[in-house]
Amino acid sequence: MAFHRFEPKIFHNTLGTHAEVLRVQPGDTISTVTVDARGVDERNQTLASGPNPMTGPFFLEGAAPGDALRVQVNAIKPNRNNGWSRNLIASNVLDPEYLRVLPEEDEKEEITIWHVDLAKGTAQVASNAPAYHYPKLALDPMVGCFGVAPAIGEAISTATSGQHGGNMDYVGFREGVTVWFPVAVEGGLFFLGDLHALQGDGEIVGTGIEISGEVEFTLDLERGLNIHWPRGMDDKFLFTAGNARPLDQATQHATTEMSRWLTQDMGVNLKTAHIMLGQCVKYDLGNMYDPAYTMICKMARTDLVEWGIKYM
Amino acid sequence: MAFHRFEPKIFHNTLGTHAEVLRVQPGDTISTVTVDARGVDERNQTLASGPNPMTGPFFLEGAAPGDALRVQVNAIKPNRNNGWSRNLIASNVLDPEYLRVLPEEDEKEEITIWHVDLAKGTAQVASNAPAYHYPKLALDPMVGCFGVAPAIGEAISTATSGQHGGNMDYVGFREGVTVWFPVAVEGGLFFLGDLHALQGDGEIVGTGIEISGEVEFTLDLERGLNIHWPRGMDDKFLFTAGNARPLDQATQHATTEMSRWLTQDMGVNLKTAHIMLGQCVKYDLGNMYDPAYTMICKMARTDLVEWGIKYM
Amino acid sequence: MAFHRFEPKIFHNTLGTHAEVLRVQPGDTISTVTVDARGVDERNQTLASGPNPMTGPFFLEGAAPGDALRVQVNAIKPNRNNGWSRNLIASNVLDPEYLRVLPEEDEKEEITIWHVDLAKGTAQVASNAPAYHYPKLALDPMVGCFGVAPAIGEAISTATSGQHGGNMDYVGFREGVTVWFPVAVEGGLFFLGDLHALQGDGEIVGTGIEISGEVEFTLDLERGLNIHWPRGMDDKFLFTAGNARPLDQATQHATTEMSRWLTQDMGVNLKTAHIMLGQCVKYDLGNMYDPAYTMICKMARTDLVEWGIKYM
Amino acid sequence: MAFHRFEPKIFHNTLGTHAEVLRVQPGDTISTVTVDARGVDERNQTLASGPNPMTGPFFLEGAAPGDALRVQVNAIKPNRNNGWSRNLIASNVLDPEYLRVLPEEDEKEEITIWHVDLAKGTAQVASNAPAYHYPKLALDPMVGCFGVAPAIGEAISTATSGQHGGNMDYVGFREGVTVWFPVAVEGGLFFLGDLHALQGDGEIVGTGIEISGEVEFTLDLERGLNIHWPRGMDDKFLFTAGNARPLDQATQHATTEMSRWLTQDMGVNLKTAHIMLGQCVKYDLGNMYDPAYTMICKMARTDLVEWGIKYM
Repeated sequence: MAFHRFEPKIFHNTLGTHAEVLRVQPGDTISTVTVDARGVDERNQTLASGPNPMTGPFFLEGAAPGDALRVQVNAIKPNRNNGWSRNLIASNVLDPEYLRVLPEEDEKEEITIWHVDLAKGTAQVASNAPAYHYPKLALDPMVGCFGVAPAIGEAISTATSGQHGGNMDYVGFREGVTVWFPVAVEGGLFFLGDLHALQGDGEIVGTGIEISGEVEFTLDLERGLNIHWPRGMDDKFLFTAGNARPLDQATQHATTEMSRWLTQDMGVNLKTAHIMLGQCVKYDLGNMYDPAYTMICKMARTDLVEWGIKYM
Repeated sequence: MAFHRFEPKIFHNTLGTHAEVLRVQPGDTISTVTVDARGVDERNQTLASGPNPMTGPFFLEGAAPGDALRVQVNAIKPNRNNGWSRNLIASNVLDPEYLRVLPEEDEKEEITIWHVDLAKGTAQVASNAPAYHYPKLALDPMVGCFGVAPAIGEAISTATSGQHGGNMDYVGFREGVTVWFPVAVEGGLFFLGDLHALQGDGEIVGTGIEISGEVEFTLDLERGLNIHWPRGMDDKFLFTAGNARPLDQATQHATTEMSRWLTQDMGVNLKTAHIMLGQCVKYDLGNMYDPAYTMICKMARTDLVEWGIKYM
Repeated sequence: MAFHRFEPKIFHNTLGTHAEVLRVQPGDTISTVTVDARGVDERNQTLASGPNPMTGPFFLEGAAPGDALRVQVNAIKPNRNNGWSRNLIASNVLDPEYLRVLPEEDEKEEITIWHVDLAKGTAQVASNAPAYHYPKLALDPMVGCFGVAPAIGEAISTATSGQHGGNMDYVGFREGVTVWFPVAVEGGLFFLGDLHALQGDGEIVGTGIEISGEVEFTLDLERGLNIHWPRGMDDKFLFTAGNARPLDQATQHATTEMSRWLTQDMGVNLKTAHIMLGQCVKYDLGNMYDPAYTMICKMARTDLVEWGIKYM
Repeated sequence: MAFHRFEPKIFHNTLGTHAEVLRVQPGDTISTVTVDARGVDERNQTLASGPNPMTGPFFLEGAAPGDALRVQVNAIKPNRNNGWSRNLIASNVLDPEYLRVLPEEDEKEEITIWHVDLAKGTAQVASNAPAYHYPKLALDPMVGCFGVAPAIGEAISTATSGQHGGNMDYVGFREGVTVWFPVAVEGGLFFLGDLHALQGDGEIVGTGIEISGEVEFTLDLERGLNIHWPRGMDDKFLFTAGNARPLDQATQHATTEMSRWLTQDMGVNLKTAHIMLGQCVKYDLGNMYDPAYTMICKMARTDLVEWGIKYM
């Protein structure tokens, strides 16, 4: 249960079997920093190139294929007074016929700068947007991209996601969440980065408010918990993340993983699990921008209690 | 602003240019009853065959193509002490490879009976499910299928949905909601039915808790409001409904309609609208079971106020 | 085995349970004319409005739900010296990001006129296209839209397709083809129209070379042949048509129907059928423009013979 | 224009920036061997584990990002007298509802052994299939997986495909074909393997007839030919390959690349190119089994000549 402070010097654009930067024991806590999606840190210095340079990987002693690496996200603190976002809804989120009335592509590549007030916890458009009385939005910091190294030596771009996690860009990955990833290589090799100060559902402009930050998390190990897709829990919900394109397939992955979780891991009868899901399940659209989309399937913890299901 | 009580004698399995059962003026209120998805009424008598027999159509005087028919849903009251649902998550919501471990198809066609306590506002599994301590779920009644007649003489099955509305099976179509449909024929020709006492997101078992009921609604006309897809408003959100398969396309329709609503109808600058949506939009999965899926794109009314947008 | 000459006076924009224009016996042959996709006939007079006005419906005596209506297309003869096409690949067939470099939408609505030389059997761009030495293309006339009335009183737009057939826009529906449609109502109610003088795979500009014409076909009945999707046979292939969006689902429908045809109707062992399909199947992209796309799954007749399969 | 004989000792399960096994000059020819999809060689010895172990990578001197690596496939010779295939159509190619009538999943994992007669050029089912008079099918050998290393250090599984090529499983990649890949790293780093003695469209059982073999190919360089997706040419067609899921997106990629090829590289006016494609384009379904599907967009060389287009 040691505490580690880690200052990254190198960053990775893929989740793969890269040399670990730190070895930790199950239960250890790590405090570190992340640069933003374009590699810019809290002093507005560019330390790495995009996409989504990752801090890590962290090697969890004892983790082996078939295990789950559990991440408790203790704190997510943006650490500078500016962030940036794109301006236009991504082409794949709009009707093809509607795209032709939109501004030119090069405008789309423009970015909007946001002033971030860390003390007050707000973000407000600062530049490169039409004259307007922009409101101060409440910050809701989240981790855009985290996960583990995939199997067979794959090194997967941090622009996308898969069973190993990655660039899921889901607003629910905020402070306090617990996430399980399927371990595919020795040590798991956990990476994280790409913080957003705030984001709407679906990351439909292709970004949240992109920012660098401080993160603290605790890594633990659940041996033999043979999961197929990332799972999570926050104070209200248990959830699963399906990552694929199209959304239909992402939803199939997430729903199937929830069905497995309930029946294989919690021991609920299949028909009972499905009757419950049918009338109580909720879904969130994680992202519909990245090469793989993310759909979240979730059940309220209070509902599980009401159905007499022991989930912990 | 008359009040009409209407007792249906015939029911329709398509939304089309059927003979109207009642002509009303803009602002009139109608109270009527609906049978359940298989045509069963409050006395458990089968009055019509499935799918989703509709009450209506109601002819709104003055409504013409290019107008929007506005429905204020004043009350949705299930009117019997039982409902039914399917038992297994639909094949298209699960990974194809996972389907083979599920029970046989004929089991899937089995239904579960729910006891509905109208006084206490709860539903509880009553039969045809594994022995289990089933909880009492709070009712949250909704309209599964409603909409208007489509153009060019089409008569579209109540099993599916489209620009005209139809079988959207979205949990947000509950008491208090206001919905706008694009008028495609003289009088609009409004139909409704297929109440659910309760439903999870996505209607993933292929049903909510299917039930008959009493409904009261007010029909009104917004001339020249040239909408492409159903729009809605409840006490918290403004939303749009995209109906198509796959989910990607449903999401494109809903998002495009929201972009049009903000820019063309509310006069918000396009880039400002997109900056706002990017960081504030929410999505709900309406249904992922019917031939056309339904995705909901929504903005909180408080967010719109904060951005200085007059939406009414 | 009578021969009927039918001159249409009305045209339909939906396939539905419209009043029949002619009743025929199984084995009868019908000679008739069709207008083009915008309702224009051989004298360039507009007799009906789009989309795809249909000639028919023809009532086949004895046809009942569960039967198959078999159409032998004896002749397809364009009957005027001009046709028209759209100019630009449809938005849904191109990468969303690429759409923004294309000409404006209104240009897309422009049409190109083709000179059609019926004697020589060629078509050549005649106007409204960039200056260019346009070649004379060999005509390959086909039926864009044909099928039967769907069940439960649906009337489905001739812009789209489904299990009932409809606007499949497949180049293989040329002279000499035999097609089976699943009968859903008494008499089947067969419609046809929307001839193309020529078309590429996928109808990716949204049209073939649209033209009016003479058609002769023989209607027959196969009682109790319980098919789910249109099936066809030409001199080289047996094929099935899946109609849905996205293409994945259209392909699933077509492949499943081929698997059923082989195993349930021809009696081939399932594993043998799949081993054969795996190494010998072919696919054609029917259309990827209409609301429902069309994918064709086909097996060469010579291959079936080689595998010892009696298909007739 | 040297000739190299290369005997592989290691094999890769990813296309990535692995150490080159041979450096060659533009115009050089390489003769080498490949093991089958499970790593088995001509002596039925297992030299590597799946998926699809690759021979290579070959470093092409001078190749740099922005160039195209051109592969002329001179010869594909299976080199043993047996191959194997799967038995059942893959779950994602069939209707979800139909899957439940199929045999159990574990049967699906069974394989069928084929006797391959190299002298006569035929393959015939040899075992593990129902009793049947199996025909001798003509061999049509192809390369299932080949391509170059992707950018930013990605190492992508040989089970899937992308802009870099990879596991496209297209029957058109046979002897005589020329293929262009977009170079993303210094030297290009070309890999190949996964030969099929024969395959149907779509690789719908998840395999062709998997086999090891001898391959001979010539590597060349086209500087600054900034392609986005693999392109190819055989004796009849020019074609492009789009690799993605769903099929819709694969088709969009392939069609967009063909539009770019014609307009940007061959200088055809956009509208003329689209008018031609609309009436003359063809599509092939490469594969609908792998994580990314492959769709081929193609134009007959004779058609291009007729339209006066210089494609070489």
